[in-house]
Amino acid sequence: MEKFDVHILGCGSAKPTQRHNPSAQLVNLREKLYLIDCGEGTQLQFQRARQSFSRLNHIFLSHLHGDHLFGLIGLLSTLSLSGRTSPMHLYAHAPLEGLLRPWLDFFCTGIHFEVVFHPLPEGNESQLVFADRSVQVWSIPLRHRVPSCGFLFRETPLLPHIRRDMIDFLQIPYYAINGIKQGEGWTTPEGRHYAHEELVIPADPPRSYAYCSDTSYLPANAPLLSGVDLLYHEATFGEDLAARAAETCHSTARQAALLAKEAGVKRLLIGHYSSRYSDEQCLLNEARQVFPDTLLANEGMTLQV
Amino acid sequence: MEKFDVHILGCGSAKPTQRHNPSAQLVNLREKLYLIDCGEGTQLQFQRARQSFSRLNHIFLSHLHGDHLFGLIGLLSTLSLSGRTSPMHLYAHAPLEGLLRPWLDFFCTGIHFEVVFHPLPEGNESQLVFADRSVQVWSIPLRHRVPSCGFLFRETPLLPHIRRDMIDFLQIPYYAINGIKQGEGWTTPEGRHYAHEELVIPADPPRSYAYCSDTSYLPANAPLLSGVDLLYHEATFGEDLAARAAETCHSTARQAALLAKEAGVKRLLIGHYSSRYSDEQCLLNEARQVFPDTLLANEGMTLQV
Repeated sequence: MEKFDVHILGCGSAKPTQRHNPSAQLVNLREKLYLIDCGEGTQLQFQRARQSFSRLNHIFLSHLHGDHLFGLIGLLSTLSLSGRTSPMHLYAHAPLEGLLRPWLDFFCTGIHFEVVFHPLPEGNESQLVFADRSVQVWSIPLRHRVPSCGFLFRETPLLPHIRRDMIDFLQIPYYAINGIKQGEGWTTPEGRHYAHEELVIPADPPRSYAYCSDTSYLPANAPLLSGVDLLYHEATFGEDLAARAAETCHSTARQAALLAKEAGVKRLLIGHYSSRYSDEQCLLNEARQVFPDTLLANEGMTLQV
Repeated sequence: MEKFDVHILGCGSAKPTQRHNPSAQLVNLREKLYLIDCGEGTQLQFQRARQSFSRLNHIFLSHLHGDHLFGLIGLLSTLSLSGRTSPMHLYAHAPLEGLLRPWLDFFCTGIHFEVVFHPLPEGNESQLVFADRSVQVWSIPLRHRVPSCGFLFRETPLLPHIRRDMIDFLQIPYYAINGIKQGEGWTTPEGRHYAHEELVIPADPPRSYAYCSDTSYLPANAPLLSGVDLLYHEATFGEDLAARAAETCHSTARQAALLAKEAGVKRLLIGHYSSRYSDEQCLLNEARQVFPDTLLANEGMTLQV
């Protein structure tokens, strides 16, 4: 199966602690890297995950709060010092460009690559933010104190595998293979027709990963998240602090689990823990009461989607 | 003896590595904290040194390169989240204010303390940058690719200790003690005069700490640094890379040691190592050939000045 991994680089919240770095995750999909959020220290966490900066061309920022982006200027500066020439695409809310440009101009004077700003949508509709041959990235509308959106990574369906035994048996010529992969059948010179399905083994079903942080509990997102393989959802507080969660536009562990259950996702990963917790087991227990397939995010963790 | 410690929070150079954080040091002088430089990750290193943010009111930045200040916005943001109200004084080259203000305004919306910018001098003269009851901080002119200056921390001389035995023997009244501490003598009712020196034990001589990073080798600074107790000097390269050091306006370990020797400092601490070194022992050996009392800086190290 093609690689589709999520590396947790940071899963703390606004106040950094000795236990957790601020938000950052790295998605590795077929050996291309996609960074989600970029809190202070992300470049070191990236190195610790033993990933190569050269495979990273796209950075997605959920919202413009410092704990999700204060590591960006350091990362871009290091890439500049490393002699990078490929463009870096930033998907973020519009004000970022006006904030970051003066810093890039001042601190990255020898920069040899373009930083391309792509403003994120701010509406209540999920929109296609980015697509390449491997993945589509859709925005997930979130509700926070500033415009915020999550990201839904949908793997592009792979073409089916050709059945080598049938190709050999029927002596199908090479030029016809691509058409069969795309859905065609094959008719022998004698006029016998073989359907597409007889000639291929279906590809693995496309996988999906959803990142939701920071946000109030938004059950309206359940249809959009329906059936995703892995959902990361913030769980800044426990249910005993539900009022504080509502006030600060965050979610409780229970609310994250409720959404996972309503959406029928396969697995739930919680994170963005308030610095008040010296042990997040209470958050895990609370979520598992509603949605048993819940995991606690932790720095250094890698999950296969 | 009153406390005068230097905590090494980061002693790497521009490219962060798993071994060294970018530049940051914390001076603790009589339980007041002074931060010198503030590379990415400084707030976490500060916590690791088990120091209290509430004792920090003054931050000194040697120059406006990212590896010396990308941790500043995160630190100020965390202080803001922590409810700080005391002003924070920043001593930095003038362009910092124009760069940092928009970030403070955008990312620290609930900030309840004033950030006071004090532009550093750019000339070739050492100037008094800051003074309080405990310390004077003087600029040290440095030569780098951008305006850069070091900092010389000179402890304010303490008053001498009163000789309790003499006070008791001569029955000197309480109101006269302060005058004696300040330098006066005492005449008994019978007219016998005791000189100031007979009534006190001299205070410990005032100590001094000098921070020089980033800079080319500048022997002209030797008189200014004469006799300092501890000199931190950058040693980005070994002598085999002297040409690279000259080209990038950095120093070699040998050059740092030459300056220490010429200035007659008591101890030399080297740091700001290029990321190419996986072991800095070669830099230490090179410096010790010229100046034996040399130490390698390392994260987590605390030195008594």
